[in-house]
Amino acid sequence: MAHSVSPLAPEALPELHPIAGVRLAAAATGIRYKGRPDVLLALLEPGATVAGCFTTSKSRSAPVDWCAASLRNGAARALLVNAGNANAFTGKKGVATVKAVAAAAGKAFRVKPHEIYQASTGVIGEPLDPSFIVNAIPTLAAAAQEDAWSDAARAIMTTDTFPKAATARAKLGGKTITINGIAKGSGMIAPDMATMLSFIFTDAAIPAKILQALLSASVAKSFNCITVDGDTSTSDTVLLFATGTAGKLAGLKSATDPRLAGFAKALQSVCHDLALQVAKDGEGAQKLIEIAITGAETDKAAHRIAMSVANSPLVKTAIAGEDANWGRIVMAIGKAGEKAVRDKLRIRIGGIQVARSGMRDPDYKEAEIMPHMKGRDVRIEADVGVGKGKARVWTCDLTHGYIDINGSYRS
Amino acid sequence: MAHSVSPLAPEALPELHPIAGVRLAAAATGIRYKGRPDVLLALLEPGATVAGCFTTSKSRSAPVDWCAASLRNGAARALLVNAGNANAFTGKKGVATVKAVAAAAGKAFRVKPHEIYQASTGVIGEPLDPSFIVNAIPTLAAAAQEDAWSDAARAIMTTDTFPKAATARAKLGGKTITINGIAKGSGMIAPDMATMLSFIFTDAAIPAKILQALLSASVAKSFNCITVDGDTSTSDTVLLFATGTAGKLAGLKSATDPRLAGFAKALQSVCHDLALQVAKDGEGAQKLIEIAITGAETDKAAHRIAMSVANSPLVKTAIAGEDANWGRIVMAIGKAGEKAVRDKLRIRIGGIQVARSGMRDPDYKEAEIMPHMKGRDVRIEADVGVGKGKARVWTCDLTHGYIDINGSYRS
Repeated sequence: MAHSVSPLAPEALPELHPIAGVRLAAAATGIRYKGRPDVLLALLEPGATVAGCFTTSKSRSAPVDWCAASLRNGAARALLVNAGNANAFTGKKGVATVKAVAAAAGKAFRVKPHEIYQASTGVIGEPLDPSFIVNAIPTLAAAAQEDAWSDAARAIMTTDTFPKAATARAKLGGKTITINGIAKGSGMIAPDMATMLSFIFTDAAIPAKILQALLSASVAKSFNCITVDGDTSTSDTVLLFATGTAGKLAGLKSATDPRLAGFAKALQSVCHDLALQVAKDGEGAQKLIEIAITGAETDKAAHRIAMSVANSPLVKTAIAGEDANWGRIVMAIGKAGEKAVRDKLRIRIGGIQVARSGMRDPDYKEAEIMPHMKGRDVRIEADVGVGKGKARVWTCDLTHGYIDINGSYRS
Repeated sequence: MAHSVSPLAPEALPELHPIAGVRLAAAATGIRYKGRPDVLLALLEPGATVAGCFTTSKSRSAPVDWCAASLRNGAARALLVNAGNANAFTGKKGVATVKAVAAAAGKAFRVKPHEIYQASTGVIGEPLDPSFIVNAIPTLAAAAQEDAWSDAARAIMTTDTFPKAATARAKLGGKTITINGIAKGSGMIAPDMATMLSFIFTDAAIPAKILQALLSASVAKSFNCITVDGDTSTSDTVLLFATGTAGKLAGLKSATDPRLAGFAKALQSVCHDLALQVAKDGEGAQKLIEIAITGAETDKAAHRIAMSVANSPLVKTAIAGEDANWGRIVMAIGKAGEKAVRDKLRIRIGGIQVARSGMRDPDYKEAEIMPHMKGRDVRIEADVGVGKGKARVWTCDLTHGYIDINGSYRS
């Protein structure tokens, strides 16, 4: 059932430096896949803070409910992630599984259950037997080490065609801090939906509340700006853990403290990198598409217009066919429901202006744009002529590969 | 470039009875297609009233702007429709074309320009030379006759795989009235987007304002309840013309007058029939999918949930693969953004309960559902456990045919 690696995959996994206070291990427990790691443990030293962002789905999974509730405490001592079963739409059994895993891990690590963070990805609606994870805890704890980032990135894959990791460094309180992140998402075969998980770790010392504000801001401009098929998962989770072993700042009160600027930029860079890797591993993806909207009423309006273009099957199939079909871009802008002045609309593809003043640019020649359309990266810019709102989002093209992956019967 | 007829097409075009006061003709003018009719004229006797519903797109076409403005007068004497060029995103040239056609037809028929209704469907962003239509007016006028419904249905096709027509009769003021409708939509090859046009005619005598109320109510439950790919056209248009040659009612003041009940039901039946034909001719469609949502907060909330399921590429590809993947239905309900109680969610496919109380129904056996999944009509019912809101929508599956049709280069 394996699909070949996305042509948009990075050449290699980046090298991630160890982060003091974080130890990792993966194990093959056979939840669904055979002969490959499917459970990840990340152990955190005392004092680690945590922030999280979750799916807005109204039918979110049991582990998402668990993490969202635990976040109130702001402290984390371990993360357990499994691939192969999403523990979503599993009713009371799903809640019992999450509780059983937290209780067992809490006991093993001598920490509170709510300090055990959990995420699950894979098939929906099938009960997840907690014993797969619970039985693996002693082995995982014994094996945990600081340099197992590659194993960690691989353990959380479902049908991703490549592991996803990103790293960045910044100065904080005169010290160098590191941010490492891993993610999975969007390359699925038959079972389910594009579930997006990302786990980011740093040695920076940042209180949970401020960490949350920084994470939310970064997620808004990265993970929340990608789409493969417009189908929001029940399980989307981004967690950021800060061990606090480096870069302590005195009197830190707010996420807008100028001393955090370097950290915020590095975090944004990790989130952006991981988000783009997810889009690049979109099911059946052959091209990465960037959509930049300007001139909207507000940034939010610009985001909605950009997402309307990014989710349009007609735009995505046209790009798959290497067709600079800007009429479909006009359509997708028009249907977004946000203000746009048709007779001021300006569209560029690959930097070449194709339409302006509500009509085809008389100087535009389709042949000029063909080299851009044949490339791996397609860039669409549109100014909708209303105000100063702007947004940028990323998606992939819609190809036969998507139908192959999602239209084949689960087995 | 022709695609084979949809497997969901009706066996034959229904027989449409003449409507007194409506004469039709089609002509091959070569706007884009060669050797097939591409312009339709419908001539209306003096006294005809008109109602219309149009796309909500912010980049709607010049003919849509024209019709919407003309509707204020409530009177119509002719309809001119062309296929092959949508006259959308054509700037001032597009407006000039619409005005030129209205002026020429107004002069030829000795009526006011705003009594000439127009619709265009086809490629976007290319100027439409009015002379194709203007030059055909004398021939069309001379050829117009009452029984040319089949020609009319064919003249407005772009890449539809079958012509679409529906008819119904009702009693009005003791007389039998007839409602005939034609539509085009959703079967396109490369050039553009799923443009939906429908023209409905009746001999009933109903003032424009009341006609509009009746049409709006019917469209809300028919055309506005179908989706092929979630891509709203720049040109969607439904027009209803009433010649007033039959069934005059004294003192008619409101659309809720009980004497109109029969007419309203017949109109709803014609709109429903045509809307389903459009869904059945959805690009690449192999199956028609009905989605019925109950238990939502309001009817509007139910409609949004139903559309979220109907537009989900993961649900649509699963059905194409004959996979009763209810996990994806859970996902699509969850992402709709409307209230839904996960632990009360109940889902039926083909009448068989697959999930209840927020989890898989323990009695559900996948084998039982397979005959339903292998059929042409798939029915999904979900109760979201909040209130009394309900809605029903229709779509088609997402297959390789869709990618073939829309991913091939325009040429």
